[in-house]
Amino acid sequence: MPTNRQIVLAELPQGRLGPEHFRQTEAAVPSPEDGQVLVKTRYVSLDAANRAWMQGATYRSALQAGDVMAGGSLAEVVESGAAHLKPGDLVFADTGWQDYAALNAKRLAAIPKMEPLTHLLSVYGVAGLTAYFGLLECGKPKAGETVVVSAAAGSVGSIVGQIAKIKGCRTVGVAGGEAKCALLKTELGFDEAVDYKGGNLRQALRAACPGGIDVYFDNTGGDILEACLFGMNVHGRIACCGAVSQYDGAAPAHGPRGIPGLIVTKRLHLTGFIVSDFDDQRSQALADLQAWVASGELKVREDVIEGLENLPAALIGLLAGENIGKRMVKV
Amino acid sequence: MPTNRQIVLAELPQGRLGPEHFRQTEAAVPSPEDGQVLVKTRYVSLDAANRAWMQGATYRSALQAGDVMAGGSLAEVVESGAAHLKPGDLVFADTGWQDYAALNAKRLAAIPKMEPLTHLLSVYGVAGLTAYFGLLECGKPKAGETVVVSAAAGSVGSIVGQIAKIKGCRTVGVAGGEAKCALLKTELGFDEAVDYKGGNLRQALRAACPGGIDVYFDNTGGDILEACLFGMNVHGRIACCGAVSQYDGAAPAHGPRGIPGLIVTKRLHLTGFIVSDFDDQRSQALADLQAWVASGELKVREDVIEGLENLPAALIGLLAGENIGKRMVKV
Repeated sequence: MPTNRQIVLAELPQGRLGPEHFRQTEAAVPSPEDGQVLVKTRYVSLDAANRAWMQGATYRSALQAGDVMAGGSLAEVVESGAAHLKPGDLVFADTGWQDYAALNAKRLAAIPKMEPLTHLLSVYGVAGLTAYFGLLECGKPKAGETVVVSAAAGSVGSIVGQIAKIKGCRTVGVAGGEAKCALLKTELGFDEAVDYKGGNLRQALRAACPGGIDVYFDNTGGDILEACLFGMNVHGRIACCGAVSQYDGAAPAHGPRGIPGLIVTKRLHLTGFIVSDFDDQRSQALADLQAWVASGELKVREDVIEGLENLPAALIGLLAGENIGKRMVKV
Repeated sequence: MPTNRQIVLAELPQGRLGPEHFRQTEAAVPSPEDGQVLVKTRYVSLDAANRAWMQGATYRSALQAGDVMAGGSLAEVVESGAAHLKPGDLVFADTGWQDYAALNAKRLAAIPKMEPLTHLLSVYGVAGLTAYFGLLECGKPKAGETVVVSAAAGSVGSIVGQIAKIKGCRTVGVAGGEAKCALLKTELGFDEAVDYKGGNLRQALRAACPGGIDVYFDNTGGDILEACLFGMNVHGRIACCGAVSQYDGAAPAHGPRGIPGLIVTKRLHLTGFIVSDFDDQRSQALADLQAWVASGELKVREDVIEGLENLPAALIGLLAGENIGKRMVKV
């Protein structure tokens, strides 16, 4: 009988997240109750939002010390009494950081297999759909406009920039460090890249966006959001996707300067969204993403780490910005 | 020959605006050049934005020490070589705080006279149109929803609340002091009023909005915006009209907590606007406003002060929240 390795949130971090906030343990493989299926975790998705769940309630309730660490996964059905799911089926599931989970069958749906499987968590998963809907539905870019995206080398940002380019925009990525900035231009087709660690951010943005910013896709909040607010054009749009700069600390800080002053004088639109708001448009989005990947217009970057035991380090590293593209852990 | 009394901005305020920042002077009545008309100021509109113009560039360039204080007025044409304007015609004009101004005729249009003339600066002027477009086009309230407005006893807020009520919403006004709060409920038909000077604002808002806030019309920014952000429902809308809490000081402060965190998790929409963005819908707006005033559904509150020399005190008092309804000075 296999055991169920689990990574538990040992204590809630007050400051920066570290390995001391996690511990690994083993439990019995759960027995599915009526209406449940047993799934085995294949790939765990790493997301900045994982850290936000430790701060307080978001769109899900806050995590508590002693909980198995929460996280979304690509998982395989092992045992099922439900008609719509059979052993071997793949599902997206809120397994948490563990080998096995018993989950409500009604919330799960079998997803078509593909090669490579990892694309189901990157470009065809939450990251790709978030980039697609946030940019197109909230940002509403028009050809010729300037689109800026923060965390531009990350899972979402790297796709946002490429979709903006496909739509005929001038694309500017904000990322940390020269290496990432170089990669944005050479590998991912960004027109310009701005290193937020490189000094005067407002000035660097102005230089990279001589015509101002029409659309800003915000993955970071904080200083980068503030700098972009000051660089926005009248009637600019800001898609608020996340606030990674705000998550890895005790409590959300004050908001950026210029709110609401610049919102009024520049008549800006800020829109918050999460990907499930657009579930009814999912098929069209996937069709577009598949076509762009097939044509080579959209390059997929993934960062796959092996081993459940490496999940804590993978998340800590993601919050420090060490990944390029979609980070996940193969269990 | 009459003289032209002028109120000059003697120096730019660093902290709160006071009478020492103005001085009254006299100049010759200007002679209109080619393409200009001479107008006589009848009523000067007092607006929180007047103070913002001293902080820096907004949708107009910043004021400088020594400038005649800027301000919009209802003015009467005295001398005109332009075919479309004759002496006696009324115009809205950027006269500034003075008896006479020589202005570019092309930018002016005669407006129909009505009784009382003051309504041209209140409900049928910028205040009424700002309330109308901000609420209906940016806030997009639906019947049964809860609408909160700050500076609710002011020129814009008092109209926002009443239009929201006409549209079938539950209306909650935020104002300073018990007297204003009582008036909102007894005179202007608000369902609830919250005194922002009365202590725990978040708690008071929760009590006044047990079903949460669907639309927030923000005239103040600062702490009231922050408290409303925390009280918003998912998919709520915030119309950003102004930030009077931020204007009467040295420089705009940090933004409210919860940006962008709450924007994302609650999927909020923040929209900044100024009334001229909706010029093409002006006729419909005026027709609606006139019908509501005629039916008695919309009550117009005005606060008319006599005498050009009282302009500085009128603005200082407005920033301190002493007015109820639209404040203007009859010259």
